[in-house]
Amino acid sequence: MTIDPASVSAANAYKILIGSIVPRPIGFISTISSGGVFNLAPFSFFNGVCGDPPVVCFAPNARTPRKDTLVNIQATGEFVVNIVSEEIAEQMNLCSGNYPPEVDEFQVSGLTPVPSDIVRPPRVLESHVNMECRAMQVIEVSGRPLGGHLVLGEVVRFHADDAIIDSRFHIDPAKLRAIGRMGGMAYCRTRDRFEMVRP
Amino acid sequence: MTIDPASVSAANAYKILIGSIVPRPIGFISTISSGGVFNLAPFSFFNGVCGDPPVVCFAPNARTPRKDTLVNIQATGEFVVNIVSEEIAEQMNLCSGNYPPEVDEFQVSGLTPVPSDIVRPPRVLESHVNMECRAMQVIEVSGRPLGGHLVLGEVVRFHADDAIIDSRFHIDPAKLRAIGRMGGMAYCRTRDRFEMVRP
Repeated sequence: MTIDPASVSAANAYKILIGSIVPRPIGFISTISSGGVFNLAPFSFFNGVCGDPPVVCFAPNARTPRKDTLVNIQATGEFVVNIVSEEIAEQMNLCSGNYPPEVDEFQVSGLTPVPSDIVRPPRVLESHVNMECRAMQVIEVSGRPLGGHLVLGEVVRFHADDAIIDSRFHIDPAKLRAIGRMGGMAYCRTRDRFEMVRP
Repeated sequence: MTIDPASVSAANAYKILIGSIVPRPIGFISTISSGGVFNLAPFSFFNGVCGDPPVVCFAPNARTPRKDTLVNIQATGEFVVNIVSEEIAEQMNLCSGNYPPEVDEFQVSGLTPVPSDIVRPPRVLESHVNMECRAMQVIEVSGRPLGGHLVLGEVVRFHADDAIIDSRFHIDPAKLRAIGRMGGMAYCRTRDRFEMVRP
């Protein structure tokens, strides 16, 4: 099947992207509004960018609560990336609903906000890894309803649970038990692994 | 463990990123040099950005063959994203080696280049999904050795194998059998899935 994106709806183009670009890591992002309300929302258009300095990126679209995340970052310049393991999958999913800006998704989900070292948004206690970030750049990629922004952030502090990382900074995937995002309502676990040596 | 990125080597900061931002989708990217040599290399700092227009991004770092990919895109403005399923994992891995610019990784891997509809770089016949892209923006995020660029590309044509997509553009993950990237030499399959309904 050959598909000209201009010949299908934006919703269908989006459906092809999220069905084929899999598995996607989940950036579970905590922010704080200018009025002091916490926000917590998952994004799967999320990834690393480079190591020096450590930089991550994610793409909020125009929908709430994604909009709240973007509004808060534009107001404060700060966010925290929290990594999602199997044990907090349900709580993460609760935070993916569309809530008004005054709703604190930590309260909705029961997850525990812990003060960050450097930035104002709290980190999620139950996540095995947290990355405190300062926004470097916010790019408006497209202003259409299914368009979006791309946020680039520099990691200014890592927190990693001693139970999943060793002294040489190796993270054990069997202990992290991260989940990834697939198309539709689907997620995948990361238990089914194999190795290939780079040539 | 609390880690100030400024207190560890860039290699260790990178190690924390690739160990915790998992599972990562793989963008297997084909390009053509100004001299006409094909290049094919996998990137796992890769994801979608938005649906309208359909946009993807990936971050090449300074190493070859990633450097070749970036050089080619800067010269031609075009690339193709090919999706990696279990059946071409070994061939993809062969393309992750460091080869000089004159080496065509289609020949190294035995994968089949097929002419694209709109862009000059060929697509990979064996991939179940291909996305012909035009570069929108190339951002130098950091010029350091473990720094990198971020390439944003608009998808101008999708190709999807009729065996994995239906007439409503739903891609069956059990047929796609995509693989994801973990830390170190590890990959994960996407067979171990579950669903959660958004609240």
